Amino acid sequence: MSDPKNIVKPRLPRGLADRGPAELAASERMLAKIRETYELYGFEAVETPAIEYTDALGKFLPDQDRPNEGVFSFQDDDEQWLSLRYDLTAPLARYVAENFDRLPKPYRSYRAGYVFRNEKPGPGRFRQFMQFDADTVGAASVAADAEICMMAADTLERLGIRRGDYVVKVNNRKVLDGVMEAIGLGGDENAGRRLTVLRALDKLDRLAWDGVQLLLGKGRKDDSGDFTKGADLTSKQIDDIKRFLEFAKRAADAYYPDAFRTIGTEAADVPYQHIKDGFSFLGTNQLLEAGLDEIADIHRYCAAAGYGADRISIDPSVVRGLEYYTGPVFEAELTFGVTDEKGQPVRFGSVGGGGRYDGLVGRFRSEPVPATGFSIGVSRLFAALKLIDSPIVSAGAQRGPVVVLVMDRDRLGHYQAMVAKLREAGVRAELYLGSAGMKAQMKYADRRNAPCVVIQGSDEHARGEVQIKDLIEGSRAASGIQSNEEWKAARPAQFSAPESELVKAVQDVLARHM
Amino acid sequence: MSDPKNIVKPRLPRGLADRGPAELAASERMLAKIRETYELYGFEAVETPAIEYTDALGKFLPDQDRPNEGVFSFQDDDEQWLSLRYDLTAPLARYVAENFDRLPKPYRSYRAGYVFRNEKPGPGRFRQFMQFDADTVGAASVAADAEICMMAADTLERLGIRRGDYVVKVNNRKVLDGVMEAIGLGGDENAGRRLTVLRALDKLDRLAWDGVQLLLGKGRKDDSGDFTKGADLTSKQIDDIKRFLEFAKRAADAYYPDAFRTIGTEAADVPYQHIKDGFSFLGTNQLLEAGLDEIADIHRYCAAAGYGADRISIDPSVVRGLEYYTGPVFEAELTFGVTDEKGQPVRFGSVGGGGRYDGLVGRFRSEPVPATGFSIGVSRLFAALKLIDSPIVSAGAQRGPVVVLVMDRDRLGHYQAMVAKLREAGVRAELYLGSAGMKAQMKYADRRNAPCVVIQGSDEHARGEVQIKDLIEGSRAASGIQSNEEWKAARPAQFSAPESELVKAVQDVLARHM
Repeated sequence: MSDPKNIVKPRLPRGLADRGPAELAASERMLAKIRETYELYGFEAVETPAIEYTDALGKFLPDQDRPNEGVFSFQDDDEQWLSLRYDLTAPLARYVAENFDRLPKPYRSYRAGYVFRNEKPGPGRFRQFMQFDADTVGAASVAADAEICMMAADTLERLGIRRGDYVVKVNNRKVLDGVMEAIGLGGDENAGRRLTVLRALDKLDRLAWDGVQLLLGKGRKDDSGDFTKGADLTSKQIDDIKRFLEFAKRAADAYYPDAFRTIGTEAADVPYQHIKDGFSFLGTNQLLEAGLDEIADIHRYCAAAGYGADRISIDPSVVRGLEYYTGPVFEAELTFGVTDEKGQPVRFGSVGGGGRYDGLVGRFRSEPVPATGFSIGVSRLFAALKLIDSPIVSAGAQRGPVVVLVMDRDRLGHYQAMVAKLREAGVRAELYLGSAGMKAQMKYADRRNAPCVVIQGSDEHARGEVQIKDLIEGSRAASGIQSNEEWKAARPAQFSAPESELVKAVQDVLARHM
Repeated sequence: MSDPKNIVKPRLPRGLADRGPAELAASERMLAKIRETYELYGFEAVETPAIEYTDALGKFLPDQDRPNEGVFSFQDDDEQWLSLRYDLTAPLARYVAENFDRLPKPYRSYRAGYVFRNEKPGPGRFRQFMQFDADTVGAASVAADAEICMMAADTLERLGIRRGDYVVKVNNRKVLDGVMEAIGLGGDENAGRRLTVLRALDKLDRLAWDGVQLLLGKGRKDDSGDFTKGADLTSKQIDDIKRFLEFAKRAADAYYPDAFRTIGTEAADVPYQHIKDGFSFLGTNQLLEAGLDEIADIHRYCAAAGYGADRISIDPSVVRGLEYYTGPVFEAELTFGVTDEKGQPVRFGSVGGGGRYDGLVGRFRSEPVPATGFSIGVSRLFAALKLIDSPIVSAGAQRGPVVVLVMDRDRLGHYQAMVAKLREAGVRAELYLGSAGMKAQMKYADRRNAPCVVIQGSDEHARGEVQIKDLIEGSRAASGIQSNEEWKAARPAQFSAPESELVKAVQDVLARHM
């Protein structure tokens, strides 16, 4: 008991949440299914701690609206800066670099864990949330990227999301970088502006072209009046980007799906030269061509393995916010409709994404190390599965334990012995440990979702008996009974048993409701 | 690739560790077994985040050798202090207080999670480690404490620790507090000195009486020359504590085990008055008597449920370092011998502990809320299970995936299709994604612990065939073969199959090694 003046308010910081038993069980089933899919693809588990050296993580987060660029950081006793991980990719890069010689290469691994972002929390936006990642390190071939896309598709389907209700969208940073080079934004000196352009394009879904156009130019004032400075491109540069996006979208829609339909043939023959020709207004650009070649290859590998455009499709507007991507980028999107906060119908949107980050492990080494990966936003995916009522998350609450009631407080030890016998037989059981009377004990058993209670008052004790009350049957019977009197006369679903047969009697009740 | 000047060193801060697939799988099996036992006792899962308000956690850690009293803390953007949780009990108290009205009472819950201590790391001492807790909140009866002790014993046995190789030791803070009151250390003004005394007694195992005696008096200089200030008790006070410990130990050894042997009787009749008489040199003391009564009750409940002194025993030297305990305290100790860093035989020691903390939820409320709980130190217990070779942690490494080798790089899509077919049939399989030749690919498959590889060069392709190489059988056969020539002639464990029967051929190999 606290002095009223000193009472601490029990509360969580914003953007953090507790989770109860039903959500934990459902989430565990979901994670098990993801794990199973990743293992089917040959990935093996690895885990890194939540805390790393700040310099080992690097700074790759988009849109820092907080100090420390969105990362929780603190100083160690030797003055070195430590940070909570903000994703699972940067720690993996550190892990691979640290254990490079003893790991098989390519190194395929998966890991689930909490990450932390020191961002402004909002609806559905948490400061601690779980990611589930898979990465292939040491494979330069885009066959690795293609496989990651297929695995993303498989994962969603195994979780109960129907084909057609999702799409894994593929693009390539090299294409975007090539376009920027072509319009005069190449070179180290333009790195900052390139990033601003990428982040503007990343908002195409949300702001449409009109909004993005402003962010490519002078800047944009949002609904709240906040002004975001733009990339300050010329109108010719903005027009070229627009023209690129339009043609790329048309080409993706027209040609790649066609090619995807010729599934299983060795080289799904894309009318590929036509696409390259379409970009000729940008001049000859090696980066752009390399990017297009990689997209075509990914698409060819997917098609060969039977994954058509209904599952994996090319989308030139996919950017991904993180700075470290260097090649193919992916976004797993749920395409079914939901209503947003304003009641407007919208697509559910992204539940995961990833891409190739050939420079990230290289930060630690003198030679480059190619790598690609995919990250599932576990909470968002969980919310989606609840929305579509996937059996994986919607299974009913687990049945509670059998509750042994306490009728005579001086026989607590005796009741404890009954509970111990039930547990020895593998029956989940507990002694009522509070100090309330019979009625409150029954209410407690109801709240615990107990299948039955065991009652032994002094009369039953004298006769060497116990009463078993089947709460499931009882609540069913109760709905058909009119009066208290009728109830007392019938006492449905309650019966006596010799105490020596307690375990069997309880097991019989449990067997009724299997 | 990084500029050599800018290469970041890939390293983890001290006291933090990565975990690979074998350890993760073993640890998952261990956690599942603990979870199963806790659920058998009627506890339900709950999870709280890693970050809390610093004031909600409170400061209850022993032996702060770091700033922030052993806790990692940082300021939020509104200047409020946040901390990483240092245990799972303080967050539970916050959770229960925040959700008090909607939770069933007593509220039984369990949770596993990482906790963080900003302490000096050392061998086996980590700054991030996992705890697995179970707590009953809202039960004042020591029947709840007794049950926690039984559950601790059950958990250890279910994990493969034999009866006799562990003991759950029980004591009561009220007894210790009563002794201190009796020797003149009562009252708020002596709270600090009482804590110093408790922490000195907590070191009895490690320092023996000679060392503890110094900590009760002026202080003690350790081997490294560091001086720890003592509680500054008079020699009469120190003598009284010694006399108490001696008699309590004798009484516990002599009487409680006897009583434990009369298992299953309603009131295991302890020669109880004799024990109380033994403490009469301390005068009449209500706290001490209440503590002894509670110990006797716990002991009676355990005995009634069939848990004898071979599993749960009274030990007056058990203290527990955390400040928030108010009544019974427990310590789960492994009693089998191991050798310490100096090669000396020692007991393995504590793998968990807990106790009653009736004030902790009350920090948030105007009325007291009784509570008791138990916490397993997961990494220590894991180390113990490895030491005794418990089947739960010592199962062999999981078999790796089937690896499809890449012989013709221009047929990557075709190989990808083979892999997809295997996966569709539920066979864990992967395409070799690196750029190395045949020999390195075989070595890779070995390192991945692959059961077999699939090979299709251009000759096999022309014939519509695949080669399957059984690596398990192959390595067995290899040990009986003398020369390279003999090997090439026999080619053991390698066979051809039509490509159309790839899946069946691979499944046949897997079935051989089930």
